Amino acid sequence: MSTDRTVTAIAFDAYGTLFDVYAIGALAEEMFAGKGAQLAEVWRVAQIDYTRIRALSGRYRDFWAITGDALDFAAQKIRIRMDAGQRKALMAQYARLDAFPENADVLRALKGRGLRLAILSNGTDDMLASAVAAAGMSGLFAHVLSVDSAKTFKTAPQAYQLGPNAFGCEANEIVFVSSNGWDVCGATWFGYRTFWVNRAGNVLDNLGVSPHGEGRSLADLPGFVESLK
Amino acid sequence: MSTDRTVTAIAFDAYGTLFDVYAIGALAEEMFAGKGAQLAEVWRVAQIDYTRIRALSGRYRDFWAITGDALDFAAQKIRIRMDAGQRKALMAQYARLDAFPENADVLRALKGRGLRLAILSNGTDDMLASAVAAAGMSGLFAHVLSVDSAKTFKTAPQAYQLGPNAFGCEANEIVFVSSNGWDVCGATWFGYRTFWVNRAGNVLDNLGVSPHGEGRSLADLPGFVESLK
Repeated sequence: MSTDRTVTAIAFDAYGTLFDVYAIGALAEEMFAGKGAQLAEVWRVAQIDYTRIRALSGRYRDFWAITGDALDFAAQKIRIRMDAGQRKALMAQYARLDAFPENADVLRALKGRGLRLAILSNGTDDMLASAVAAAGMSGLFAHVLSVDSAKTFKTAPQAYQLGPNAFGCEANEIVFVSSNGWDVCGATWFGYRTFWVNRAGNVLDNLGVSPHGEGRSLADLPGFVESLK
Repeated sequence: MSTDRTVTAIAFDAYGTLFDVYAIGALAEEMFAGKGAQLAEVWRVAQIDYTRIRALSGRYRDFWAITGDALDFAAQKIRIRMDAGQRKALMAQYARLDAFPENADVLRALKGRGLRLAILSNGTDDMLASAVAAAGMSGLFAHVLSVDSAKTFKTAPQAYQLGPNAFGCEANEIVFVSSNGWDVCGATWFGYRTFWVNRAGNVLDNLGVSPHGEGRSLADLPGFVESLK
């Protein structure tokens, strides 16, 4: 790959793609037996909804704050009494997520082939720095890019533009990798080469656009990158 | 109200606010017993998601098309085999929704007080014209405004701007009414006076903004409008 002049860099989404958010739902279930899974689900949906609504309305607020807003909403919606300590513990899970087991080897292999790696996430700088350190991935990434510097969220083009800006190349020289179907669709519209890590075997959103590649784990990514030569 | 110089017009969201979308889920349940409610729910969520993702990505496609895209996605996601006739019948429900029972009287009363009325909806001109006619509401509205003319969706300011443009007044002279919490939040940010028809007793989304009024049906709206004098 080091001689491949077509693809020179790979940008990864963070949550659900590099970092396993399973621990968040697990802690929620420990705290609120029988309602934890629902809490995690309503929380996640509201979190994503709020990024979109705020971006569309020009009312940006950073992802850490939005994540807290969405947690408070979720607890209220499903009628859970969450005290300040529980809230803090749930939020703190974001700083100590595990990486998916295959990730470190895959990232090291790609880097070893001369590809430059980045994270491009809705998360804030602080959230991403904590997650990278907790997952033992420090040193692997040339750039850890938060949309916070663009004051909007994916799928706004201004968010995806951070990748080409950081790498100093065109979007189509970068492979963008995400476990979220809507994220790879947005990235494909933007102009990236895209790879969908479809861990759960989900149906792709019907947006009239498809990622260029798909796999069931990050272990399927190197083969896709090879195929682009 | 006719002498009230503060509020001169009222703009209504359409689906769920003026028109009861219950019939869509009911037909889905008739067609796909045991899975109809889930189909309607996944369909509705995808429909809204697609408006936001497309608006945020600058990839507008009209609401009728998006509604069809979302239906196809929902059927695939929950593993329903939907034939062309069933698809057509489900889509056609949008043209023959009932109005909520209290609506006609409330709208006539507001109009009788000299307030100008409008619909401001994500729906297309054709969808709205059919729904207005089917609900027997022709003649009540000074304007039926589709975001299609702005080529974006709520909660983008350009969508809400259609109201002031049509009425030739400032947003704060218009009451915006919706059953969707996110819609009244977006409209409040934009500058409307806002009223949330919270028919289901939902928890308001936690976006740091609240509607100016709230009721359990449209019958609570005239009192709110009076209170603004």
